[in-house]
Amino acid sequence: MDFSSKLLEQAVDEMSQLPGIGKRTALRLVLHLLKQPEAQTEQLAAALTKLRTEIKLCSNCFNISDTELCEICSNPNRISEIVCVVEDIRDVMAIENTGQYRGHYHVLGGKISPMDGIGPSQLSIKPLVEKVKAGKVEEIIFALSSTLEGDTTNFYIFKQLEGTGIKTSTIARGISVGDELEYADEVTLGRSITNRVPFENSMKN
Amino acid sequence: MDFSSKLLEQAVDEMSQLPGIGKRTALRLVLHLLKQPEAQTEQLAAALTKLRTEIKLCSNCFNISDTELCEICSNPNRISEIVCVVEDIRDVMAIENTGQYRGHYHVLGGKISPMDGIGPSQLSIKPLVEKVKAGKVEEIIFALSSTLEGDTTNFYIFKQLEGTGIKTSTIARGISVGDELEYADEVTLGRSITNRVPFENSMKN
Ligand SMILES: [Zn+2]
Ligand SMILES: [Zn+2]
Repeated sequence: MDFSSKLLEQAVDEMSQLPGIGKRTALRLVLHLLKQPEAQTEQLAAALTKLRTEIKLCSNCFNISDTELCEICSNPNRISEIVCVVEDIRDVMAIENTGQYRGHYHVLGGKISPMDGIGPSQLSIKPLVEKVKAGKVEEIIFALSSTLEGDTTNFYIFKQLEGTGIKTSTIARGISVGDELEYADEVTLGRSITNRVPFENSMKN
Repeated sequence: MDFSSKLLEQAVDEMSQLPGIGKRTALRLVLHLLKQPEAQTEQLAAALTKLRTEIKLCSNCFNISDTELCEICSNPNRISEIVCVVEDIRDVMAIENTGQYRGHYHVLGGKISPMDGIGPSQLSIKPLVEKVKAGKVEEIIFALSSTLEGDTTNFYIFKQLEGTGIKTSTIARGISVGDELEYADEVTLGRSITNRVPFENSMKN
């Protein structure tokens, strides 16, 4: 693309670094901002910068949180002995939306993916294993998406937990294999949590 | 959507104000930024803010430009007596890409659209009419998309130019009616400029 303005080109370049945003879409978004009051661009820039610099993770479950302990971990009515292992905050939001889960979460921050250079040490797997070994957990529910990376991650954690005697399960898959959790409808997702199956059984398929 | 973080919620809210970006997409984009180095978010925020506050329009053609006169208007090899009227910089870029046009442009900054509250006074129509009345232009080529708003805008300008004796034409439509210029292939678009027709003729259809 041949721009008549370096300023415009730089803004489009930065915008098109976002996933799924090509140069043409980036140009459309940037031209839109130019037609809006200056305050809108300022607020967008400020909100992104503030989030990126001030972002905190809950010290217990590693979910994004503005406080040391997130709302779920600090809620005395939630069952801390049941821990649902998910990839990121979108999965927490999706499961919370079903209104059918009363346990805690553990947010890994991603999935093991050698292709993307993501190994176990970049995920919050160690704190989960330590929590289990400290005897604070009775059941682990694996709720990663059933992709190759999700299955690899589940299995890695499962092996780390060997010998602890912890009960493990995976959410029942009414959801079609390979689907992302966050796109599942609430009823299906809620049911798949209620009908969770022992993790060993899920591997027999 | 129920977020566990106000910071996250604000960033998603601001991002989802962009056209075509829903809350879910906004969340995906914001979570992506959180996984990237802080510098990427800073650069995006800075580029948008800098563009929005320092943006200038060419004093002759009203295209986005970092200089008082844009590259096209200040190029002595371009024919200043032929002026192609377009909606925004994307149309300039699309026509420039054909390599078949050597005249100037006049960028309106939008189309007349009562539905969106955009009237003639919000567009750079007056400077165009003044340029014509000052005898600096020999031919006006209308190259707005052939939508209701585009046709309305063409016709409004055409009426303003009555009595000036200026030659007016519209780009030949090998492009299907209603299509946006920027999505036309270069060959079709180049040909439609070469085969432009007098504006009066285009109204007979
Ligand atoms: Zn927490
Ligand atoms: Zn210019």
